[in-house]
Amino acid sequence: MINKGEFELIGHIKDMFRVPSEVYGIGDDCAIIPAGEGELLFSTDLLIEGVHFLRKESSPEDVGWKAAAVNLSDIAAMGGNPVATFLSIALPKDAQGDWAERFIEGYARISRQYDVPLLGGDTSSSLRDIVVNVGVLGRCPSGKAQMRGGARVGDIIYVTGPLGDSAGGLQAILKGVDRTEDVEVLISRHKHPVPRVHEGRKLMETGQVRAMMDISDGIASDMRHIMKASGVGAVIALDRLPYSSHLRTVCAEQNWDIYELATGGGEDFELLLTGPDGLDKSVELPLFAIGRIVTGDDLVWTINDEPVDSKFVGYKHF
Amino acid sequence: MINKGEFELIGHIKDMFRVPSEVYGIGDDCAIIPAGEGELLFSTDLLIEGVHFLRKESSPEDVGWKAAAVNLSDIAAMGGNPVATFLSIALPKDAQGDWAERFIEGYARISRQYDVPLLGGDTSSSLRDIVVNVGVLGRCPSGKAQMRGGARVGDIIYVTGPLGDSAGGLQAILKGVDRTEDVEVLISRHKHPVPRVHEGRKLMETGQVRAMMDISDGIASDMRHIMKASGVGAVIALDRLPYSSHLRTVCAEQNWDIYELATGGGEDFELLLTGPDGLDKSVELPLFAIGRIVTGDDLVWTINDEPVDSKFVGYKHF
Repeated sequence: MINKGEFELIGHIKDMFRVPSEVYGIGDDCAIIPAGEGELLFSTDLLIEGVHFLRKESSPEDVGWKAAAVNLSDIAAMGGNPVATFLSIALPKDAQGDWAERFIEGYARISRQYDVPLLGGDTSSSLRDIVVNVGVLGRCPSGKAQMRGGARVGDIIYVTGPLGDSAGGLQAILKGVDRTEDVEVLISRHKHPVPRVHEGRKLMETGQVRAMMDISDGIASDMRHIMKASGVGAVIALDRLPYSSHLRTVCAEQNWDIYELATGGGEDFELLLTGPDGLDKSVELPLFAIGRIVTGDDLVWTINDEPVDSKFVGYKHF
Repeated sequence: MINKGEFELIGHIKDMFRVPSEVYGIGDDCAIIPAGEGELLFSTDLLIEGVHFLRKESSPEDVGWKAAAVNLSDIAAMGGNPVATFLSIALPKDAQGDWAERFIEGYARISRQYDVPLLGGDTSSSLRDIVVNVGVLGRCPSGKAQMRGGARVGDIIYVTGPLGDSAGGLQAILKGVDRTEDVEVLISRHKHPVPRVHEGRKLMETGQVRAMMDISDGIASDMRHIMKASGVGAVIALDRLPYSSHLRTVCAEQNWDIYELATGGGEDFELLLTGPDGLDKSVELPLFAIGRIVTGDDLVWTINDEPVDSKFVGYKHF
């Protein structure tokens, strides 16, 4: 399925990415990377037009940014360092020119920002839908990868930044809300999520983190992954979650439920972790204590330290 | 886009693959693999229904086998050892049950045969078409990866096995040829290509290979990749290409042009390499000398050591 357009696209991609001298990227059967020390991390994500994004609602640059961002976030979630990405892309005829170039522009922008080379991939035509698959290779010191299964009873639960902004931005787009400055910030958080690579590495280096992951589906769902993997329960204080002033303002103006957005909405890509009390004071990062790990397997939500409906519906009524 | 069916599919996938104890596979944000020594190899391939396969003409098991095979072949082409694969799969509703399970069965069969664990991936729904992306991670000793750019004038050109069988098998399917025993062999070569992993590694270990790649698009196209990367020309003897007895028989019966199938047809996944005269005698592998590297940038085809039409059309007329 190689045609001239694809060779041109590959050439364009090669031009857009700096490749470090110690590796070999696009142009042979495989990319070649020194194995080095420690451990390798690998994650991959598939994006399909109509399922993960709509062409008429997302700019190609935004899709490109996000395709890389979600994968870098998986490396961040382990406390690792991204080494390289690999991009497979299938394009229908009407996306082979301008759309593809703008997609690559967005992908290249975040790649430069995190200094991660694109070292290979695959290009193909597609009959109807745009398909993007990104793989990311990372590295971390042996035995230091931060997994989900290490949370212990008594641990404090932390997040690295405000929750709900991305969900608020998405809701603003879907409802066609007036673009105030605050709304624009939320939309930008939705379109250009920031993978917490620096934060993840710094947290790994403390040696004190017990369980960590990135918040991609919303804390209500993601916290349960840590609970299940660790065999523990959790209590989270809704009134201690970090909310941005932008989200507070827009929620007040639009009468939106901020708790619902912050807990149920996904794609904030902040890190969710557990560790000892005081970790937020000893590490030079924004870190917000939002709850604690307990025995059992329930996820209990509190306001003013009192449990509230744990079925996670109807927060609007509080 | 996670739903119950996808968790079930992930569970099914986990059950189907053995994971070595030194790695961590499916279940966290990333797979974790010891970095170890040497160099890493990575390759990835995207398969789209309607572009790379037709659901009504390929069994799910065959698509699963081939999706893994083409990637393992890329590792073989570098002389590497496959370490792990990563599978992203997007399924429309009508492929989420039986089709997916049978696909995984084929993928698992070749993975077991080559003892390569599946360590991660992504699952998604799809609106219409099945989408499969496979990534493969391999390893080889530092500086030993066999690339395309090392061919030198005077090198002999070798292949590891018969050419044209896969193209013959495809043609037999497309033309609805009677399924004789010979035809079945060709179809099997097309449906279940055998990546030359063992051969690639053994060739790498000789230290004598100068350029190597796998034959995926047909030797007429693939030889030009080595020529371009190495800055050399090549002469290939059509009458010294290895042809299977099955292909000879079927071509005679059907009046098909064996040269066209062997040079223009792809997906044989034999290895194409250059090295010194006599390499075929010193290595304990089937290795067929088919030509030599010359100055210039032309690919010259010969029969009885006489050049024939180099435009690569009309072999039927010889």
